[in-house]
Amino acid sequence: MTIKITGTGSYIPKVLKKNTDFLQHSFKNIDGSDFPNSIEKTIEKFKDITGIEERRYIDDNLNTSDIAFKAAENAIKNANLNPEELDYIIVATNYGDVKKGTNQSDMVPSIASRVKHKLRIKNPKCVCYDILFGCPGWIESVIQAQAFIKAGMARKCLVIGSEALSRVVDVHDRDSMIFSDGAGASIVEASEDDGGILAFESATHAYSEFDYIYFGKSNEADSDDSTRYIKMNGRKIYEFALINVPKAMKACLEKSNCDIKDLKKIFIHQANEKMDQAILKRFYKQYNTEVPEGIMPMSIKELGNSSVATVPTLLDMVIHKKLEGQNIEKGDIIMFASVGAGMNINAIIYKY
Amino acid sequence: MTIKITGTGSYIPKVLKKNTDFLQHSFKNIDGSDFPNSIEKTIEKFKDITGIEERRYIDDNLNTSDIAFKAAENAIKNANLNPEELDYIIVATNYGDVKKGTNQSDMVPSIASRVKHKLRIKNPKCVCYDILFGCPGWIESVIQAQAFIKAGMARKCLVIGSEALSRVVDVHDRDSMIFSDGAGASIVEASEDDGGILAFESATHAYSEFDYIYFGKSNEADSDDSTRYIKMNGRKIYEFALINVPKAMKACLEKSNCDIKDLKKIFIHQANEKMDQAILKRFYKQYNTEVPEGIMPMSIKELGNSSVATVPTLLDMVIHKKLEGQNIEKGDIIMFASVGAGMNINAIIYKY
Repeated sequence: MTIKITGTGSYIPKVLKKNTDFLQHSFKNIDGSDFPNSIEKTIEKFKDITGIEERRYIDDNLNTSDIAFKAAENAIKNANLNPEELDYIIVATNYGDVKKGTNQSDMVPSIASRVKHKLRIKNPKCVCYDILFGCPGWIESVIQAQAFIKAGMARKCLVIGSEALSRVVDVHDRDSMIFSDGAGASIVEASEDDGGILAFESATHAYSEFDYIYFGKSNEADSDDSTRYIKMNGRKIYEFALINVPKAMKACLEKSNCDIKDLKKIFIHQANEKMDQAILKRFYKQYNTEVPEGIMPMSIKELGNSSVATVPTLLDMVIHKKLEGQNIEKGDIIMFASVGAGMNINAIIYKY
Repeated sequence: MTIKITGTGSYIPKVLKKNTDFLQHSFKNIDGSDFPNSIEKTIEKFKDITGIEERRYIDDNLNTSDIAFKAAENAIKNANLNPEELDYIIVATNYGDVKKGTNQSDMVPSIASRVKHKLRIKNPKCVCYDILFGCPGWIESVIQAQAFIKAGMARKCLVIGSEALSRVVDVHDRDSMIFSDGAGASIVEASEDDGGILAFESATHAYSEFDYIYFGKSNEADSDDSTRYIKMNGRKIYEFALINVPKAMKACLEKSNCDIKDLKKIFIHQANEKMDQAILKRFYKQYNTEVPEGIMPMSIKELGNSSVATVPTLLDMVIHKKLEGQNIEKGDIIMFASVGAGMNINAIIYKY
């Protein structure tokens, strides 16, 4: 028995928000002080570091669970699956449903239960839960699905990453430009086909790193003190990721018994273009190798960082040839890798 | 190999809130109308149905993650475990940290990451995540821990249920009197001893039941419209639970190949005394048997309904002989069972 992804789907939100749409924003530093540069200069610098030119937000009337459902519908269709046969619906999220205009996360019932409701699945043995694991939540949910399959508890799992970060950003924080909304879904199944998940690696660094991404006050000192937003210590995350992610990727590749030259694609969490490139460079440096051209499909330029949704969305786009110049073929060895709040890091080596 | 609970711990919050402390409250019906009875009568009726006389709230300066940590410390000590050997920290919660005086759930990083940080664990291979599964979250986390152990991914897991419902109750809702705060923890380990987890059962009913427990507006029409609270449709839950929980318990017992007469204790989610008694009566009725005296330890009278924390706290109390007239001995067959938001139901048959 192998464990394979038999279908993928995603949902790209409709509201297009360009960098120029932030020209009216008044960004502040974390200490409330003004940026030394003009807003134009700040945005230009932001673009150079992150690679982000535009991002997508969900419509005002939608929530995280709505787009999770839409991505799930597509994955189910793609896998040609009867949804009543699902043993699990696992949703990776961090903020759940945050209704437009409110500041509360609504996660009771779980987003997974809401998705199941929307899918009109009757079978009570299809168990629904959400996991909170920062941006690496979708990869971790795939790892959990394979555990249930290995343990004989499941055969077919729907694994979704869904987030609407536009609902939790501080408009006075330059980092708000990084974040976006999105949902990606996949069907993870026990299979008689060869390949599938060959190895995985997972870690939580919490000794001194646990609060590098956190929920904090607005950078605007006059803002309502009781409302908090997604916040990050970008410099510390960058340093942390550059040290630890390449190591975790190497550990995962070694477990898989694949060679570095076997790797055809690396689907990395779309956190920040420069950071992702630096991680890849360090990963290959461990093998005294240059980064192969085109090995890392990127969607961050147009889609920003949609947390748990970036990797499954990117995978769906490449499989369905929606990303120019990128595709994968049956038998290809690919890698998923992510880093985010927790601080969590994970990776999977997968034979497509 | 068996999978056993090798240590338990809990945290009973310090603030004692008696039913008489609600005498100044102005409870409303869900439609905003007044109750027909006096507040004294309303509280008396509440006590008759739920069995709750008092409940515990956490101190103003504490959060869900703080009490999760305290329960975890006790479980680790009880298991005589080196925390650096933990492969997983799984926290079942639904609202995470809600700081006193605010209305936001703070779950980034996960409560599990915060607990790991407080425990000063360095080992990055100790993976931390939270699950959202309603009140049955702790039992479900035990099921997940056993899956990881069975799949060869883990040997030692710390499994915690922690919630501070006092931070999300609507003071104008009579149901607010049901809810309380608490944390229970356990160490789930691969073991060479006999017994342990013999069978489990898990289900999500979301077709028409998904919103029986939900996040809704205050019963007081003049309240701030944008803040929502834990809400439930008590009558529908009661009916749902009475039909489905006894069936799930029976299915679980059958999987374990144990006889109904083997059952020494049933640790059921402390939702409502009358409902728990009715569930047990129906469970035994399926075997044409009366409910054995003392088989169901109850803590709801003094501790209320602390969601994910009730079952692990009750287990810890009985194991450590802190509940009058209740104890379990090595070799005893016991059952855990729960029902809650999702709507989720689960059960475990366990040989102590």
